[in-house]
Amino acid sequence: MPECRIRSLRTHDARFALADGAGSDAVHSESEYCFAVTMLETECGLTGTGLVLTLGEGNRLTCEAIELLGQALAGREIEELMSGFGAISRSIADHPQLRWLGPHKGVVHLALASLTNACFDLWAKSRGVPLWRLLLDLRPEEVVSLLDLSYLEDLLTRQDALRILRDAEASRSEREAVLKTGYRGYDTSVGWFRYDDNHVAELARKALDRGFKAFKLKVGSKDGERDVRRAAMLRSLVGNDALLMVDVNQQWTLPQAKEMCRALRDVNPYWVEEPTHPDDVLGHRALALEIAPMRIAAGEHISNRVLFKNFMMAGALHFVQVDCTRVAGVSEFLTVSLMARKMGLPVAPHVGDMGQLHQHLVLFNHIGMGHEAHFLEYIPHVRQHFLHPADVSGGVYRIPQEPGCSCELLELAPALMAHHRS
Amino acid sequence: MPECRIRSLRTHDARFALADGAGSDAVHSESEYCFAVTMLETECGLTGTGLVLTLGEGNRLTCEAIELLGQALAGREIEELMSGFGAISRSIADHPQLRWLGPHKGVVHLALASLTNACFDLWAKSRGVPLWRLLLDLRPEEVVSLLDLSYLEDLLTRQDALRILRDAEASRSEREAVLKTGYRGYDTSVGWFRYDDNHVAELARKALDRGFKAFKLKVGSKDGERDVRRAAMLRSLVGNDALLMVDVNQQWTLPQAKEMCRALRDVNPYWVEEPTHPDDVLGHRALALEIAPMRIAAGEHISNRVLFKNFMMAGALHFVQVDCTRVAGVSEFLTVSLMARKMGLPVAPHVGDMGQLHQHLVLFNHIGMGHEAHFLEYIPHVRQHFLHPADVSGGVYRIPQEPGCSCELLELAPALMAHHRS
Repeated sequence: MPECRIRSLRTHDARFALADGAGSDAVHSESEYCFAVTMLETECGLTGTGLVLTLGEGNRLTCEAIELLGQALAGREIEELMSGFGAISRSIADHPQLRWLGPHKGVVHLALASLTNACFDLWAKSRGVPLWRLLLDLRPEEVVSLLDLSYLEDLLTRQDALRILRDAEASRSEREAVLKTGYRGYDTSVGWFRYDDNHVAELARKALDRGFKAFKLKVGSKDGERDVRRAAMLRSLVGNDALLMVDVNQQWTLPQAKEMCRALRDVNPYWVEEPTHPDDVLGHRALALEIAPMRIAAGEHISNRVLFKNFMMAGALHFVQVDCTRVAGVSEFLTVSLMARKMGLPVAPHVGDMGQLHQHLVLFNHIGMGHEAHFLEYIPHVRQHFLHPADVSGGVYRIPQEPGCSCELLELAPALMAHHRS
Repeated sequence: MPECRIRSLRTHDARFALADGAGSDAVHSESEYCFAVTMLETECGLTGTGLVLTLGEGNRLTCEAIELLGQALAGREIEELMSGFGAISRSIADHPQLRWLGPHKGVVHLALASLTNACFDLWAKSRGVPLWRLLLDLRPEEVVSLLDLSYLEDLLTRQDALRILRDAEASRSEREAVLKTGYRGYDTSVGWFRYDDNHVAELARKALDRGFKAFKLKVGSKDGERDVRRAAMLRSLVGNDALLMVDVNQQWTLPQAKEMCRALRDVNPYWVEEPTHPDDVLGHRALALEIAPMRIAAGEHISNRVLFKNFMMAGALHFVQVDCTRVAGVSEFLTVSLMARKMGLPVAPHVGDMGQLHQHLVLFNHIGMGHEAHFLEYIPHVRQHFLHPADVSGGVYRIPQEPGCSCELLELAPALMAHHRS
């Protein structure tokens, strides 16, 4: 492998306004999808791109945090860096001063995610392969050395992680069929909070026509009857064979959640997403016990592996929506996925990256870790801004083939080219 | 009350380097105590000052977050603002875009803390009384309207909060003696991590001479024997009547914590502080069960009331070290204190404010809420930078009499005076 050394780090504050009502939910009303982008420029002409999502104000803060934390990467050679990335990740997360602003949550953790994702992108590009291929080509010991497993000893030891990966390696071929077929997406874009009933119905019909069989509806309105009415309308429209998920975006208190889940029972939601405050481990557990067999999805705002461990050990969630633009990037995503595998819980990522990076990770989770090839959220609103937008056709994510993590933004492509020529 | 309207908001990035080794612990090696300061300037000539602690890099990010979130306060009249501050606090915490960076944790929550503390400071100054007096003069309904009790329904309802305050009101006179005597401090400054054994011994002897009867030692070294040796040394020096606390600053994994607590049993620590990762509710619970009757203190890095609720309901901590410069300021501090009162748990704040603001809150917790007048941490390293440094003599916090929250920095006094004259 020719040497590829990181020369410098730049950030970019990318902001994309959404059309009226798109992206709206019970708590996020002024939707703008923004990415705090890390660009790792190298001496070999490649650029590693990493991103995390924010919703507008605050994107600049995240960029500033990236610049503060990213100093640790300058001058590093990518193969050498990634050979022990778990330790690097831990040392950045435990910056003796910036750690105070988390620890392992908030702006500094988002920054670590963006940095980490840029490292993985650069690594895959330097090997000339898509990320999923790179991960599948690693030995179990190499995968584990990418991870920071500290504070997880009561659920996942290093030996547990190695065993999961080795077991999956032995049975890999039976799951590689997915590389030909792709795997299902589900459509979040039909049911935004501020869309009126007619618009939801129209979008759902179009999505059905395009091949989708799973749909999400934003609920959590002050008027619970609106939620029930819209969920029933959507269920009758998509039929009983389709999957219907409702997403509360943390809006309900625990008593409200219990009441609303009862009211929504007849529409048979596949999951209830973020029913209450994302730090409320025991609240989710109490709700899970109360509403069974209805199931809970959470993760969009679960900050790190330690909180995920708590949710899993408490029986507080059934679908693990870990997002590699919320936890510390690809590395902590894999750690959480290993815990989920050990606990027998499916991983269905929230896509802060709009699915660009997660489309690789779902493949690795399935083939390399033995997870079900579950489905992946699909949100198309900013797909035109990516250099290689995810190819979702017939309701199915097709397999990305370009080297890297598929996260380059079109508006940065000239800069990437200029750097490449320089 | 004459009208006092907020005209504008300024921030100040205050940084104080510490002398060699002061402030060091198992995870924070380069100590600098920094305050992200909010200054609310008014049309009536008063300035409300609020602060939160950071450790250096990142203080600027916190100031920027204050400026973004603080827009909501411009033009507000202070009595009107504080008459429903709970709702204001919730609406700032749920900013539709900045919320993404938390929610309710990290830089945005630190910013809300600084803003909130400035509002309380301004309020007390506008009434011409110290904060503890202002709080004691409020009716229970007025106290509760300062709080955001959402997501706490399974532990503390509005009715619970009112009942606690009313019950305490009825028995208040028996606890007002503390206004004459003051209450105990404990000395954290004897046992920093990088101080060698001789220095710890020398400082402990001096603190004993000055009247302190409780001491904290920083532990969590890679070499557990160092921790045990130093703890035994300090115990033999201060005697069995003194209280000795050990502070791990999150450094131990759960298995290490179990082993080290066994090894430290003979020195009889009054508490073991932050034994492991601050998000690990179930880890703390498992440890508590394992090491009983040894007790756990935590809170310095517990971000918000929802996580505190989880710690309390899980039986995962015994001393509630809520810090009004980590949670959302005075308001969420009071909320957490009410939950602790309901659960029968003592509150012993971590002092990110160096005790300046907490000295008021401990008084209100005792007289107005019925908590024990427990003791308050004392860290003197930057006391010379305050306009009204806490008066701790004979190991006792004396009662502050100046109007406000005692948080003005000396370096900002000229600006305050200039504003006052303008």
